[in-house]
Amino acid sequence: MPSTVSAMSQKSTENRVFASALAREGARTGTARFLAERRELQSRLWTRTTRVPLAELNGWHCPPEADAFRHESGGFFRIEGLSVHAPDSAVPQWHQPIINQPEVGILGILAKEFDGTLHFLMQLKAEPGNAGGLQISPTVQATRSNYLGLHRGRPVPYLEHFRDPDPTGVLVDVRQSEQGAWFLRKRNRNMVVETTEDVPVLDGFHWLTLGQLHTLLAMDDLVNMDTRTVLACLPRRGPGGAAPGVADDAFTAALWRSLDPASGALHDMRSVLGWITGVRTRTLLRADRAPLSQLPDWTRDEDGLRHRTGRFFDIVGVRVEAAGREVGAWDQPMLAVRGTGLLALLVTPIDGVLHALMHLRAEPGLVDVAELAPTVQCHVDNYEVLPAAARPAFLDLVLNADPAAVRFDTRLSDEGGRFDRVGNRHLIVETGRLPEPPEHRWLPVHQLGALVEHSNYLNVQARSLLACLHALAAPGTTPPHRP
Amino acid sequence: MPSTVSAMSQKSTENRVFASALAREGARTGTARFLAERRELQSRLWTRTTRVPLAELNGWHCPPEADAFRHESGGFFRIEGLSVHAPDSAVPQWHQPIINQPEVGILGILAKEFDGTLHFLMQLKAEPGNAGGLQISPTVQATRSNYLGLHRGRPVPYLEHFRDPDPTGVLVDVRQSEQGAWFLRKRNRNMVVETTEDVPVLDGFHWLTLGQLHTLLAMDDLVNMDTRTVLACLPRRGPGGAAPGVADDAFTAALWRSLDPASGALHDMRSVLGWITGVRTRTLLRADRAPLSQLPDWTRDEDGLRHRTGRFFDIVGVRVEAAGREVGAWDQPMLAVRGTGLLALLVTPIDGVLHALMHLRAEPGLVDVAELAPTVQCHVDNYEVLPAAARPAFLDLVLNADPAAVRFDTRLSDEGGRFDRVGNRHLIVETGRLPEPPEHRWLPVHQLGALVEHSNYLNVQARSLLACLHALAAPGTTPPHRP
Repeated sequence: MPSTVSAMSQKSTENRVFASALAREGARTGTARFLAERRELQSRLWTRTTRVPLAELNGWHCPPEADAFRHESGGFFRIEGLSVHAPDSAVPQWHQPIINQPEVGILGILAKEFDGTLHFLMQLKAEPGNAGGLQISPTVQATRSNYLGLHRGRPVPYLEHFRDPDPTGVLVDVRQSEQGAWFLRKRNRNMVVETTEDVPVLDGFHWLTLGQLHTLLAMDDLVNMDTRTVLACLPRRGPGGAAPGVADDAFTAALWRSLDPASGALHDMRSVLGWITGVRTRTLLRADRAPLSQLPDWTRDEDGLRHRTGRFFDIVGVRVEAAGREVGAWDQPMLAVRGTGLLALLVTPIDGVLHALMHLRAEPGLVDVAELAPTVQCHVDNYEVLPAAARPAFLDLVLNADPAAVRFDTRLSDEGGRFDRVGNRHLIVETGRLPEPPEHRWLPVHQLGALVEHSNYLNVQARSLLACLHALAAPGTTPPHRP
Repeated sequence: MPSTVSAMSQKSTENRVFASALAREGARTGTARFLAERRELQSRLWTRTTRVPLAELNGWHCPPEADAFRHESGGFFRIEGLSVHAPDSAVPQWHQPIINQPEVGILGILAKEFDGTLHFLMQLKAEPGNAGGLQISPTVQATRSNYLGLHRGRPVPYLEHFRDPDPTGVLVDVRQSEQGAWFLRKRNRNMVVETTEDVPVLDGFHWLTLGQLHTLLAMDDLVNMDTRTVLACLPRRGPGGAAPGVADDAFTAALWRSLDPASGALHDMRSVLGWITGVRTRTLLRADRAPLSQLPDWTRDEDGLRHRTGRFFDIVGVRVEAAGREVGAWDQPMLAVRGTGLLALLVTPIDGVLHALMHLRAEPGLVDVAELAPTVQCHVDNYEVLPAAARPAFLDLVLNADPAAVRFDTRLSDEGGRFDRVGNRHLIVETGRLPEPPEHRWLPVHQLGALVEHSNYLNVQARSLLACLHALAAPGTTPPHRP
């Protein structure tokens, strides 16, 4: 009969994760060698894409009169139309295509201790929409169609570690949302599972510490979205108290304190949850299906389906040729965006504890109305065709930030299986303590950590920036500012 | 500039709530006087209902060929049809009517200290479907239609305390589900707001301690469902350590320890959350709208819409005449069930800490697939027409329980605004430690308390029984067993 579990075993996991973040080099593959191996692998493992008209996609049903685009097998995903009513917002009504992929996929990272330090088995993966080629992916990135073999590819390696894991080895297991503006109620199961078994390392896989991943996270378009969301869900806590050796670095010291629930917070958790309840209750946002062929303001031509203004995003047809893993060639629709998005997190120390200014943002594809988003989440160009009131709070402050206040500045990609070279500039900017608008709150990292243990609280953009914020917690791995 | 909040202020709220549970009598209305005033009020405040054919309901559109029943104003609620696929379950497919009421209503209880003890402002309310007349309701029980005045009734008293409350007075603020078998994604905002203002006490309202409410909870059909769900969300914690004065009562001592997170748990929270994620991911449950007039197995006649077997539930027409408050007469459809349901919670001490055996149960109307339910939640008669494999685990154990092991046994009503005299026998039964089937887990009360701070974890039946379990925590207020 197992005895009751105390709080100690959780703390130990959190401390081991933090220790891995402090490990700038790994016991298996050094960071420089990892980057060299990636360059070498690029010649053997790649995808090449060409745009084709939607109607010509093999295996897909996308005629101009289609109410939805779908694969002939009924699997993978569908592109549907949505009619959105948000009567109290600056844009009270709009129509858009949206990706409907109701199955819950697995994003799983396998963990194991080497020389007493946690390492994570990362995969260099080619996805058709990747900017810059191979990106660092979770050990397993599998849709249900994938692991049921609907795509007639090879079995997904390492999947057995995630199918029915021993609970004592599960460090993370939570379903999280994807982009609520582009996906209808999509969720993935984010998992980190620790093993003590011998694990064969396949071509293109490497064991890396969290510290190594943090170094790599500062490089453009290298650590993929799925990795970032899983890393954001890892529980971690520093040694508590003042950060040793960083007493001269007020920012890092404030960030370390921010990892520790004992440091307190501007708003206690009860009032944070009450604020979320209040915003979700008063926000009116209704999303109804609409036929894709009749979406007002959307036009269809050889290049795809797009908004009459040319803004927001396009649905395009892509022909993929792949070398080195899985099926050799296929067609699919993808979502494409002109230009790079902006995700910015304003941070400030409050009573010596770093707080991030989170925006509780409603999106039509979210399961529960609104989730915490970065301070600013937008594509700046879109505001040229939207009412002035739609312009995000704090956008100008972010765009005009003093370079010395910029703590993180990297372009990181959205998922390359659905999005064609779509990415966002990730910015973390230190500011003074600004007043909170009704839908923004200053929260310390430990509150974000407590919320991300549950579904429906942090959106994928917030999780991506949370992973970046964690990357700033290890002195010496702090990425340089950009000029 | 407010300073950061420590964990202390939360603890203080939890201890004040627990102290109110220990107060068997209140500073304002004694329990005996309260019951006498209820009897007196019954003559002035009542509803009388008669069944009428659905097609004759005034103000409602319910012809036999209707795809959905709806109010002519477009408000209140709709009755729609649902086609449910649950391919891996004992009943892989069925059709049913379901209530669609997408607006989030408020269930709010006002709290205030008298003589240093928290009291709660409770309303004696007549609802058309109430068994036994007036039931004890929250201070405010308002749908959005209600408070927008769609029913052309009087304004809802005390609503101003819940509309934009000072966060420091908010003890509970969380959206919780209703019956996932009967409501499509219905949620209510459960609130407890503390005030220090003078509050006029209107006719039929009384300030009661939690200890008084616990005494009243042991009486059949007296404390209504909305009150029970809000009470279940109250944070509470005992003084910790051994319960003073109850060293000779092992059950109460185990329950007190169960309120304290420091007592530990059979499964730590990370593995509980991982188990929930796993069940939600693997459970296939799809619910699609279907026209009400063409639901297979459902028939429509003068008496209403019902299943061909006569089981499950009926949709009936009701004409209501009301005296004493709000509108004097109206018609509406209601949901009616033959017989009384059974909600049973098995509890056992594990390492001296009381644990309850929770069932993670999928229901078609839930927002997130499955929520924690009581050990057994069913209408026993339904299993006469269902496959043997559908019979709930532990049902026979509950039905054959030793009377000496029964800690709570009371019939309590479902909400009287939608359900016509529908209720459940609430049973709490102490057992030995039984092995856990894959979709059951033993959880202590403090873990249930941590989960109920969030949406989508405890279903309304589990919250109702959690309120009953809390009622057993105050020695002396423990309701007697039933013969």
